[in-house]
Amino acid sequence: MALIVHKYGGTSMGSTDRIKNVAARVAKWHDAGHQIIVVPSAMSGETNRLIGLAKQLMDQPDPRELDMIASTGEQVSVGLLAMALLAIGKPAVSYAGWQVAIKTDSAFTKARIESIDDVKVKADLDAGKIVIITGFQGVDANGNIATLGRGGSDTSAVAIAAAMKAQECLIYTDVDGVYTTDPRVVSEARRLKTITFEEMLELASLGSKVLQSRSVEFAGNYRVPTRVLSSLTDPLMPLEEEANSGTLISFEEDTNMEQAVISGIAFNRDEAKITILGVPDKPGVAYHILGPVADANIEVDMIIQNQSVEGKTDFTFTVSRGEYVKAMGVLEGVKTDIGAASISGDAKVSKVSVVGVGMRSHVGVASQMFRTLSEEGINILMISTSEIKISVLIDEKYMELAVRALHKAFDLEKA
Amino acid sequence: MALIVHKYGGTSMGSTDRIKNVAARVAKWHDAGHQIIVVPSAMSGETNRLIGLAKQLMDQPDPRELDMIASTGEQVSVGLLAMALLAIGKPAVSYAGWQVAIKTDSAFTKARIESIDDVKVKADLDAGKIVIITGFQGVDANGNIATLGRGGSDTSAVAIAAAMKAQECLIYTDVDGVYTTDPRVVSEARRLKTITFEEMLELASLGSKVLQSRSVEFAGNYRVPTRVLSSLTDPLMPLEEEANSGTLISFEEDTNMEQAVISGIAFNRDEAKITILGVPDKPGVAYHILGPVADANIEVDMIIQNQSVEGKTDFTFTVSRGEYVKAMGVLEGVKTDIGAASISGDAKVSKVSVVGVGMRSHVGVASQMFRTLSEEGINILMISTSEIKISVLIDEKYMELAVRALHKAFDLEKA
Repeated sequence: MALIVHKYGGTSMGSTDRIKNVAARVAKWHDAGHQIIVVPSAMSGETNRLIGLAKQLMDQPDPRELDMIASTGEQVSVGLLAMALLAIGKPAVSYAGWQVAIKTDSAFTKARIESIDDVKVKADLDAGKIVIITGFQGVDANGNIATLGRGGSDTSAVAIAAAMKAQECLIYTDVDGVYTTDPRVVSEARRLKTITFEEMLELASLGSKVLQSRSVEFAGNYRVPTRVLSSLTDPLMPLEEEANSGTLISFEEDTNMEQAVISGIAFNRDEAKITILGVPDKPGVAYHILGPVADANIEVDMIIQNQSVEGKTDFTFTVSRGEYVKAMGVLEGVKTDIGAASISGDAKVSKVSVVGVGMRSHVGVASQMFRTLSEEGINILMISTSEIKISVLIDEKYMELAVRALHKAFDLEKA
Repeated sequence: MALIVHKYGGTSMGSTDRIKNVAARVAKWHDAGHQIIVVPSAMSGETNRLIGLAKQLMDQPDPRELDMIASTGEQVSVGLLAMALLAIGKPAVSYAGWQVAIKTDSAFTKARIESIDDVKVKADLDAGKIVIITGFQGVDANGNIATLGRGGSDTSAVAIAAAMKAQECLIYTDVDGVYTTDPRVVSEARRLKTITFEEMLELASLGSKVLQSRSVEFAGNYRVPTRVLSSLTDPLMPLEEEANSGTLISFEEDTNMEQAVISGIAFNRDEAKITILGVPDKPGVAYHILGPVADANIEVDMIIQNQSVEGKTDFTFTVSRGEYVKAMGVLEGVKTDIGAASISGDAKVSKVSVVGVGMRSHVGVASQMFRTLSEEGINILMISTSEIKISVLIDEKYMELAVRALHKAFDLEKA
């Protein structure tokens, strides 16, 4: 007997028939003697419908009120799944985030989980119940509902698995695992049986849509074994087979049996680049530029500061495209304070990255990457590196070309 | 400056354009210097949509899980209304029932409000905010969401008005007041400017759909002046005119300026009658029959026990038609225990009642009523009376005929 957390995405919860499938799958695990916690997303389309209603009333919906509305999608899901289980005679109980005290900060629409109270859930599990908890949301110190942002149900599932010391967190989704890159862009993309936590973190944070990056951070920090697997298989397939399907995110580098230098190519189409020109080069300049951006709750990704010339420097950074207008507004407001000559931006850029723990012991990955892009005539706008990844910012229109060329150059189609 | 509670029904909240209308109306009251609490229902159709999903999973949805789901409709409404107000520059904040501690019992799907904590709401009102609170729901002692049943938002509004000591509770709805009877049945039906609390209670509990009966009980117990008025008027109509429109439910009999003997004819189409035949007539028989029915959370309305013959008696009562099958099931289960010869039922009966405080000082209302029905050839199945109303149970097919004949017989078309 083990404690297992299941997470189901919006597509898996998309209709009452699909919810019955989820119930059958959950029941199979429960029948095998496991304690099961399920974290379902809202039914597919529901969160967008709710946000659409909000936008009919406010162009920039008030974040607290938006969370009030958006959080209801998951609440409906947990109730429906509990009913689907009760209908087939399985003991089940649903909870909204606030009911099991999933405490978050107050950054509405992008809150972070601070703590989870496990007393109620433990009591239910010990009583043999399947416990269903809303993903995507918690409650702040003042009792306001706060959501974790799109994809936040993954984070909820992993955080709950960590808090409850679950043996494994199974993320059921509409893809059957983590691929070397997006198969919609490169048809030769190949599923990985295992991936290290660090690689997954880079892939997730770089825009690979399989798992929200914060969920991988949680998995890493609390060492929660997490598996991405398909929710589209027969719910009654043998449990042993299901338990070994998909891609396991592991914590041991030597479980990377495939020993590839590069594990995958990640990309993020929706990037935007902002350059502040002619800033006086003195201590604190980065802080004075990025402080107000952070205060506006905008996440900054790549950052470059050029060598100064005649006491002036240029400063460039990227944000996600959806926050480009907001970020530009913030900077216009502080332009005089920071003494910048001008501010320019480009919202049509994309990021492509090669990721792999093998990079540590192999040289030449960067030069191989740059040569490949050069041969395709793709200009590199920015470069950023970490121990296990190299990212480049390029013109949006070359993104697919770059991903395909790199996938081939690093032989990723071969196992 | 006064504290006023506004309640808006599902039709008034039926689209974002209508929600903007509600916001304009609320803003008008707030601009006039009043403190405003708004209790909106779910958008029309939403509660039915949610219950429909539940019924696809369970024929008899689990009550706790159903409340989890059904309560989300109002949560969406409060968030949207807050946004509509914020969008026109009015300070507003929304709360779900559990956030302002609307404490209920645990009778899921038909819970009763036990207490309301006013601290948070008072602080917001004093800070000049418009406070928007979900109708229809609260939270039980174990932190479970519990709904009050259909129409429960009226009760929420009046209970909040009572707890906050509001000067008036305005129930905005898609009718423009309380009528002598349903205008869809009798075209000569006339709107009443005032009605006493007692009359309204009889009308509401007898099936007049304008206000949920529990909301009238609350209004009566806490002496909350409550007005039923139209949400279909121009939201920018003069406030003075709006404040005097509709029907005021008053607590002074002498405000019944119209001095009519009968105020209105109420009816309830969806009744069902159950008769237990040949029960040994001994102490406790009524308790042994109705106890299990009450335990199953089924409300019983009219009750008749016949004179016993040879130590045996017949016992008849009515329930709402939707609970007929459940009630019959309960009774079949205890039939042997109570020693009944047989149980029979009729789910095609309706109740028609004449209501009026004037009855107290006038004789002959009952005989007038029975003569009118007799002249129309309508057989009376059961009779029940209170100080201010006389109800009869008749075959469903005569219901409209009875209502029209009684409306005319008591001259209700004349002011």
